[in-house]
Amino acid sequence: MKSQTERAEEFRALHKSNHILILPNVWDVPSARVFEDAGFPSVATSSAALAVSLGYPDGEAIGKDELFATVRKIVNHLTIPVSVDIESGFGLTEDELSDTINRVIEAGGVGINIEDISNPNNETPYPVEKQIERIRTVRSVARSLGIPLVINARTDAYGFTEGDKRVKIEKTITRANAYAKEDVDCLYPMGLAEKNAISEFVKAVEKPVNIMARRDAPTIPELEEIGVKRLSLGPGPMYASMGLLKKIGRELKQEGTYDALLEGAITFDELNALAKPRNSM
Amino acid sequence: MKSQTERAEEFRALHKSNHILILPNVWDVPSARVFEDAGFPSVATSSAALAVSLGYPDGEAIGKDELFATVRKIVNHLTIPVSVDIESGFGLTEDELSDTINRVIEAGGVGINIEDISNPNNETPYPVEKQIERIRTVRSVARSLGIPLVINARTDAYGFTEGDKRVKIEKTITRANAYAKEDVDCLYPMGLAEKNAISEFVKAVEKPVNIMARRDAPTIPELEEIGVKRLSLGPGPMYASMGLLKKIGRELKQEGTYDALLEGAITFDELNALAKPRNSM
Repeated sequence: MKSQTERAEEFRALHKSNHILILPNVWDVPSARVFEDAGFPSVATSSAALAVSLGYPDGEAIGKDELFATVRKIVNHLTIPVSVDIESGFGLTEDELSDTINRVIEAGGVGINIEDISNPNNETPYPVEKQIERIRTVRSVARSLGIPLVINARTDAYGFTEGDKRVKIEKTITRANAYAKEDVDCLYPMGLAEKNAISEFVKAVEKPVNIMARRDAPTIPELEEIGVKRLSLGPGPMYASMGLLKKIGRELKQEGTYDALLEGAITFDELNALAKPRNSM
Repeated sequence: MKSQTERAEEFRALHKSNHILILPNVWDVPSARVFEDAGFPSVATSSAALAVSLGYPDGEAIGKDELFATVRKIVNHLTIPVSVDIESGFGLTEDELSDTINRVIEAGGVGINIEDISNPNNETPYPVEKQIERIRTVRSVARSLGIPLVINARTDAYGFTEGDKRVKIEKTITRANAYAKEDVDCLYPMGLAEKNAISEFVKAVEKPVNIMARRDAPTIPELEEIGVKRLSLGPGPMYASMGLLKKIGRELKQEGTYDALLEGAITFDELNALAKPRNSM
């Protein structure tokens, strides 16, 4: 079993390859294990999917105890690195943010996403200087615990900036470049989906770039070609799973048959194997 | 909001209709809510799916605290009745079984499945007389709490009986008829999948019959025609969801595209709505 430091370094190295890192977002033990078994080299949690699976809406409504107990379970069942979506850090103060980072590391996480809005339920941005302070707090807590945490600095500037696309893209680049000067590992421009805009962003910043897979996003080979280093799925895998349950329900009621239930389904033994611990750290 | 007694009675009445009760099995809040939103009149937990989602294999490996905390969450997010798969009752003694039934009712459950094997990890049957005692304990605890719990008496005789199909079917009928004389509401002959065998079973017993959807099972109209009153999906919806995640992973790696991720997927707002409490009981 690799140490947490080794897993953090392994995760960081995945951002520096010529190949894009495809980072599936998961919410519980079996969703994480399916992607590990499929050969993905790391997974991340999706804040929305994880919270909803435990009965809370997205937006830091879940308590930290439940959030990190689930992260701990996921980490304990995997051998690959796990990154944690901590939204805006679960707390406005530096103390609360420090506590969150302590818990990420205690739970075995080796990476985080952190947003630059002060409350995930609206789009109020932190002033750039404040967000820089928060990023420094994250790094400083991780360093004090001896873990080279992989920090993915997300900016929601595209969403919270008033104006046309040009203004939004430029503000996104300005924000990201301010964070890039800090000790962060990756930049995550939320809302950027068009190939040209992504390409402009990648050229304008000097750190690896994370893009989210969505309906209008370029394909993986296209993203790789324009230099994107990491692709997140966000809550996509849970959107898809819930869509399938709807489809199963519709067919049961309307057709009285089980095609959607059975097609591509795994077996009892495969399901049970997803819960077998690999890691007792 | 209906009382727990009203929900138990509503659930019992669903077994007495001319239409078969399609009872989707779920494991967390959003899987349950998708089926409620789709118009199903009740849901049940799947022991395997619920345990695996929390990192435990099937077979009573999960602790009761975690199991019933999850049942409570599901009940709190639904308005329809929720039945709980308690495997073999989580404990060999009457005291342990009583505690399990207490917790089912405390968590807001209005029905249970109970198996006639003494340990879900093997197929050791309880002697019929012992299983009858256990069923009486279940009823007596529920009655003492004032809840008309819907008891689905499962027999695994088809699996644990040595011999050919004829012997297995006859032993299944003998076991089920012994349980049918008790105050149970439904009989669940695990392993029966062929139309003729199911039909023979339905004719031979005097209580509503529950069948599990599987690859070789008759369609819903066929089951209805031969008098089956309830159809369970078992861990099927989770088998299907995990199969879809595998497919999404394969396509990301092999094709670099997102078709399986996006096709039929629900939206962020739909996902978030699945966590909105409906019931604060």
